[in-house]
Amino acid sequence: MKENKYNLILSNLKLGNKEFVKAEINKLHAGDIAILINAFPREYQLDLFKLLDNELASNVLPNLFSDIQEQILSVIPPNRLINIIDEMESDEAVDILSDLEDDLSKKVLDNINKEDSEDIRRLMAYDEESAGGLMQSEFIAVETQMKRDEIIEFIRENHTDVENLHYVFVIDTEKKLVGILEITSLLLAKKNSIASSIMEKKELFVANVNMDQEQVAHIFRKYDLYILPVVDDNNLLLGRITVDDIIDVIDEEASEDAYKMVGLESEDKVFTTPLSSVKKRLPWLALNLMTALLVSSVVGIFENTISQLSFLAVLMPIVAGLGGNSGIQTLTVIIRGIALGELTIHNTRKAIFKEVTVAVINGILIGSTAMLIAYLLKSDLMLGVVLGCAMVCNMLIAGLVGSIIPIIMKSLKIDPALASSVIITMLTDIGGFASFLGLASILLV
Amino acid sequence: MKENKYNLILSNLKLGNKEFVKAEINKLHAGDIAILINAFPREYQLDLFKLLDNELASNVLPNLFSDIQEQILSVIPPNRLINIIDEMESDEAVDILSDLEDDLSKKVLDNINKEDSEDIRRLMAYDEESAGGLMQSEFIAVETQMKRDEIIEFIRENHTDVENLHYVFVIDTEKKLVGILEITSLLLAKKNSIASSIMEKKELFVANVNMDQEQVAHIFRKYDLYILPVVDDNNLLLGRITVDDIIDVIDEEASEDAYKMVGLESEDKVFTTPLSSVKKRLPWLALNLMTALLVSSVVGIFENTISQLSFLAVLMPIVAGLGGNSGIQTLTVIIRGIALGELTIHNTRKAIFKEVTVAVINGILIGSTAMLIAYLLKSDLMLGVVLGCAMVCNMLIAGLVGSIIPIIMKSLKIDPALASSVIITMLTDIGGFASFLGLASILLV
Repeated sequence: MKENKYNLILSNLKLGNKEFVKAEINKLHAGDIAILINAFPREYQLDLFKLLDNELASNVLPNLFSDIQEQILSVIPPNRLINIIDEMESDEAVDILSDLEDDLSKKVLDNINKEDSEDIRRLMAYDEESAGGLMQSEFIAVETQMKRDEIIEFIRENHTDVENLHYVFVIDTEKKLVGILEITSLLLAKKNSIASSIMEKKELFVANVNMDQEQVAHIFRKYDLYILPVVDDNNLLLGRITVDDIIDVIDEEASEDAYKMVGLESEDKVFTTPLSSVKKRLPWLALNLMTALLVSSVVGIFENTISQLSFLAVLMPIVAGLGGNSGIQTLTVIIRGIALGELTIHNTRKAIFKEVTVAVINGILIGSTAMLIAYLLKSDLMLGVVLGCAMVCNMLIAGLVGSIIPIIMKSLKIDPALASSVIITMLTDIGGFASFLGLASILLV
Repeated sequence: MKENKYNLILSNLKLGNKEFVKAEINKLHAGDIAILINAFPREYQLDLFKLLDNELASNVLPNLFSDIQEQILSVIPPNRLINIIDEMESDEAVDILSDLEDDLSKKVLDNINKEDSEDIRRLMAYDEESAGGLMQSEFIAVETQMKRDEIIEFIRENHTDVENLHYVFVIDTEKKLVGILEITSLLLAKKNSIASSIMEKKELFVANVNMDQEQVAHIFRKYDLYILPVVDDNNLLLGRITVDDIIDVIDEEASEDAYKMVGLESEDKVFTTPLSSVKKRLPWLALNLMTALLVSSVVGIFENTISQLSFLAVLMPIVAGLGGNSGIQTLTVIIRGIALGELTIHNTRKAIFKEVTVAVINGILIGSTAMLIAYLLKSDLMLGVVLGCAMVCNMLIAGLVGSIIPIIMKSLKIDPALASSVIITMLTDIGGFASFLGLASILLV
């Protein structure tokens, strides 16, 4: 999409040239139209959406930012919404309907194609972040004994609902999943071969309907999959998950980790309304105020020392600052390692040992530089020693808490990304101020 | 893969039961074997790798951590390496060969299948982080006039090299790309229909060979693609990129952003050797020492005030700490927005305005709480006012620098994630200490 499309369409929309705008957007892919609407000034977002036909609207709506989606859903006439949902893939319809008021959602479900609405109601029962919440009910399944040409006929009659088919699933007479069959293999198979002889010979990968989405993403990653069948505890085939939805999951999980580490909620995006962002961030800032008061009370223990040697207050942020940044580095390495599956139960001790080693070596190197600088500035050898030792001590604390806290949280099944910067910086602040002021009050006063 | 496989295979490897271990690992998928080797104690990693046949080894090697890969490549006999590379897909062979010493890489290329080695040499010329660096040379292309059954015959003869085919490309007589054709459409097409009539009617998406990998990932995201053809400036078809490689790119880019924000290099993983991590982190810690000294020199301006009122030193970390964490929050929101393409040139001003609004409102709420607490603790109204005002002021600074700095960097085409926590916390530290001590020296001394 060219950048000037934005100006072309926006200016014509402002002028009310509806037919022209319609013609222009019909040349675009739904993904591009969504980007346009997301970037438009708020007052024109709805205007552009109104010009989309139902099918295009059904593909654009799921790609809009959630606040814009909400705004559009709150004003769209129910009949139009029914027509749009009717065109949607089941998994996307579920996402939209889950966000609607119950009575509107019911009204839509009562008025769309009956079979679709039954599928959607079934899908809505699953946790949004589970395989069931990700799967779509559109798939093609054939029985083991079906012959090649029968399968092709069956696909011909049923494929229109299924975008990105690429595989059909093979089931037994009880509808249990027994294999998957690549369309390419079907294309090249002999006329009389049956499904069970053409299907993949390799290990069959499936997701249980209750599996967490992060684990589903790991399966796609590890085995380089495009399509994954979803089954229940009895191996009954329920749906399929496609790799494009997994990319959304991976983006979401990466944002979530980055967000949790700094105490943000996932729904707090660039264009969330300011008031909503304030509400989301305030509890965390309040927690931060508490941790800051705690840190401050540790400094308070040494107020007497500071009143005698005021330059300690000048130097103390150095120890705390370096410890904080270094602790956040360790935390980031550990949390990415957990997210990408590199850290397993077999190698946690090795990981902690490594981070502590790095922290101590860096502490000694940076600490001795700081020692030298303090000595040169103040010509006070003892002050340099205090600063350097406090630095080594605080870097060690940073390495320890930055690695141990997320690992303990993981083993307690708490999301390790919640070991956020607030907690780590609180500990390194306390470590930094206490070690520096503590040593100073023993050695300098 | 069951967790107990780890212990079963490791213990038998230790006992030297090679045949048993071989039989066990041949039941596993390459992705699982890679996870085992990655988790094994270092001395057994090579032992297990040695037991893999060439084909399995060719699928396991690309999935090992880079340090383990390096270790294995440094001891593997050249003949075995040649056999492994011969089995590999071209894009993965390129990644391995690029990391080898030039003469070893040349030796391997001289000894594998000639056609493959020509492909690989061609691919090695592209930037690792470009479409050319991602693509594989294995694909099937047919001419526009080819009939359905001829295409199927052509696929039958040529498909063994191409994993995850799903689409064939359609080219004209000059080998220029004109379309793509889904295997499912081919399966359902009539006997005499020609390629150009069966191929997709929708917009054709391509990547130019020099396109940055992040942009390629955006195309996959936006249009929900599985396979993307790669062309040169003259639209000549060069290769294809598959979605599984895009997942790796997305993981990599997410790590990179999280890493850059805290001043880490991408190659600094959980199990990078300690010395290598020390080397990678040291320059950044040295920079951090400089910024800390700068912060300290700002505090130094007010040393006189502190020596008169030592409790200022006790309270000053509160202002700096909250500003720092709040600035990092804003930075994270903006950087994720840029990474996911939500922030465009049309809406940067809106984004900055939003973040500043949030910062000011939160500043007033948290600042007045702090004011109240300070008043209750010290029964000093003026001290409360100073603390509260400094807090509002520093939160404003946090909102401004956290949003403006990454946006300016993006517009200067510098990676915005480099606006790391060090820079932001330096600015909020200076802002916090200067506003608090500055106001205090005017109003309290």
